[in-house]
Amino acid sequence: MLSYEKMSKDDLLKEISSLEERYSQYKEKNYNLNMSRGKPCKEQLDLSDEMATCLGENDYKDQSGFDCRNYGILDGVPEARALFAEVLATNAKNVIVQGNSSLNLMYDAISRAMHFGVPGSDKPWCKEDKVSFICPVPGYDRHFAVTNEFGIEMINVPMTSQGPDMDKVEDLVANDPSIKGMWCVPVYSNPDGITYSEETCRKLASMKTAAPDFRIMWDNAYCVHPIDSNDSDSVPDMLSLCEECGNANRVFEFASTSKVTWAGAGIACIAASDENISYIKSHITLQTIGPDKINQLRHVKFLKNADGVYEMMKKHAAILRPKFISVLEILKNELSMTDIANWNEPKGGYFISLFVKLGTAKTVVALCKACGVEFTPAGATFPYGKDPEDSNIRIAPSFPPLHELTPAIEILCVSTKLAAARKALGEI
Amino acid sequence: MLSYEKMSKDDLLKEISSLEERYSQYKEKNYNLNMSRGKPCKEQLDLSDEMATCLGENDYKDQSGFDCRNYGILDGVPEARALFAEVLATNAKNVIVQGNSSLNLMYDAISRAMHFGVPGSDKPWCKEDKVSFICPVPGYDRHFAVTNEFGIEMINVPMTSQGPDMDKVEDLVANDPSIKGMWCVPVYSNPDGITYSEETCRKLASMKTAAPDFRIMWDNAYCVHPIDSNDSDSVPDMLSLCEECGNANRVFEFASTSKVTWAGAGIACIAASDENISYIKSHITLQTIGPDKINQLRHVKFLKNADGVYEMMKKHAAILRPKFISVLEILKNELSMTDIANWNEPKGGYFISLFVKLGTAKTVVALCKACGVEFTPAGATFPYGKDPEDSNIRIAPSFPPLHELTPAIEILCVSTKLAAARKALGEI
Repeated sequence: MLSYEKMSKDDLLKEISSLEERYSQYKEKNYNLNMSRGKPCKEQLDLSDEMATCLGENDYKDQSGFDCRNYGILDGVPEARALFAEVLATNAKNVIVQGNSSLNLMYDAISRAMHFGVPGSDKPWCKEDKVSFICPVPGYDRHFAVTNEFGIEMINVPMTSQGPDMDKVEDLVANDPSIKGMWCVPVYSNPDGITYSEETCRKLASMKTAAPDFRIMWDNAYCVHPIDSNDSDSVPDMLSLCEECGNANRVFEFASTSKVTWAGAGIACIAASDENISYIKSHITLQTIGPDKINQLRHVKFLKNADGVYEMMKKHAAILRPKFISVLEILKNELSMTDIANWNEPKGGYFISLFVKLGTAKTVVALCKACGVEFTPAGATFPYGKDPEDSNIRIAPSFPPLHELTPAIEILCVSTKLAAARKALGEI
Repeated sequence: MLSYEKMSKDDLLKEISSLEERYSQYKEKNYNLNMSRGKPCKEQLDLSDEMATCLGENDYKDQSGFDCRNYGILDGVPEARALFAEVLATNAKNVIVQGNSSLNLMYDAISRAMHFGVPGSDKPWCKEDKVSFICPVPGYDRHFAVTNEFGIEMINVPMTSQGPDMDKVEDLVANDPSIKGMWCVPVYSNPDGITYSEETCRKLASMKTAAPDFRIMWDNAYCVHPIDSNDSDSVPDMLSLCEECGNANRVFEFASTSKVTWAGAGIACIAASDENISYIKSHITLQTIGPDKINQLRHVKFLKNADGVYEMMKKHAAILRPKFISVLEILKNELSMTDIANWNEPKGGYFISLFVKLGTAKTVVALCKACGVEFTPAGATFPYGKDPEDSNIRIAPSFPPLHELTPAIEILCVSTKLAAARKALGEI
């Protein structure tokens, strides 16, 4: 195992010199590569080409015969609600389908809670002295941005291989009534690709919370996103689990077709208990007369049912798998014999989470950038953009073509080693 | 001029008996008619049938070449912004296009102002002791419902033939800093069908407001909705007018295609000053990665440009005109020789506003309902659902077919007379 810390100064200088030479060689190639975008590539979007044309002129009625071109149907067309319910293993009555996108639904859910509270609240959250949220880290920057927008304090809890560190979570929520909620990406988490264990889910559903109106923001963004469809992860239906544990109202679940069909023209849903759904509807009925129902019909016509979704996801997996394999291969070849980095080998989702030598992530990202490769800014996967250990880097392999991925990850590895070696030398 | 007040008791009893006989005859027909829905009819929706099929599989790029199937473009595709800008006679840079619908954008605008304030605010509106809005009455119930949702106090100001009573408005806003905003439907107002005069618009743009962060919610829902395209109303571009008057940030303008293409699958926009647009974008960038851009492309492909919109609106007008004419004809025949009712003869929009004998609107609507005809509840056109004079009834002629409109309006007229006669007799 190569350890820069244990090297003699001479060996370290030699190593640095050799790394700098490799780095210069990459630099000469004037790359302009972007590894920061967690979005589908063109080939993935092409999979849904039929979406543009699958509706005929007469395909405007839902299964009840309602003319979806007109106003109405606040909570989405029945068949779209049924489709999401099947995928999420819940009941259509507990699903509200809206337009593009789930981020919008999450933002609105927090906004509503701030203005009006949620079932179980004494008062609107904005009237509380303090509202805080548990944020498993590393996590999704846009979640943190939404909480921050509303002045909600964010409390880091580390991820483990089973999901968030539940000892910490249980202790925090049991004792601090200002903690009103928690972000969770339970399947193939962003960015670690970790799927919560059943025990973690059960603890989340059953734990005692000091706040009577505690909510889990269950962002099931990647629930059908294995990179190998023969080896897929899943979590229990969190709605029934919470109900079973006597906390039916605890969870707001979110999902969308953004990474199933088109990220720029999908449909999204919120799933929740009967009481939560009534509460949400009592407010969205003032916000809209109804979502874009034609796009909901278009999605159902195209995807048909849960099996149709799974078939589609196999095609996505076939495109994504080689990219993930390629990244993991390069990481292994370059870094596995060192003690300077570790990473997860996700079985799905959109990201690979790399942990470089503590205190060097910003340097690594800067080195990559100077070499023409843009990564998500170091720290972005933490609340307030601050990774206390300056270690995590999010790799998004989906968008770039393979021939761009290879040099980008090689440059990342060289930069990771270079930064670690310089740090060992005391230069960083 | 028939006046029940001036009738002898005997004549009044005879009149009531004759009206009751007519009423019974209608009642025997067991009608089940709904006149409450301000929504397009099937024939209008059919006008946009090509929307379902107009995009081909390769029509996913905007004019800049961006793949609209993917994430991105927070403020809408350039060509959709240009289309709305042309219709609203403003600049594309001042237009943000989102999804279905403008009501959603209005709700979000108020929600944002409550959470964060607007440019010019000292603090979030929710931190103020009191926030009030001027509500021209009668007006749109959903506007009032949104303001009410956020605990904003509503102050009635009567409509005149030139728009809101500007003496009252100017006096109120000059002296009460709690008045942060005002609802306006400047063209073919809901429900009166009144178009604001240029002078009214100028006064709104230039008036002195005690609140430095006063906002006009300029709901231009019917800007292209004349019922006779040879005789259409318009108002000045409110954005430039406000800027000209030194109050560039005063107005948030809203429009949508809900009554151009499909109410259930349209696109909507908010237009505002540069500073307002930056402010809005700084918040929606946390709420969404982008709206449904494919539906925006679909709309531009189908409507093409402002001329395309006007052509489409001629077809709508051809369907709506006979319905409006029929309602107005019946009102005239039945009620013009009495002193018990008056109404506007709108040149566009979606409604006819009937003012029945003071104190009888609820009775009239109840009589209609008992006779199988549902109207918008009396009072709905006023804040808190309370018409202080109990006089206004909103007639929505667009949705029912002509053969339903005729008996429905006849029943309305008989009920209007019956209620007035009973009132004259002291029975109500």
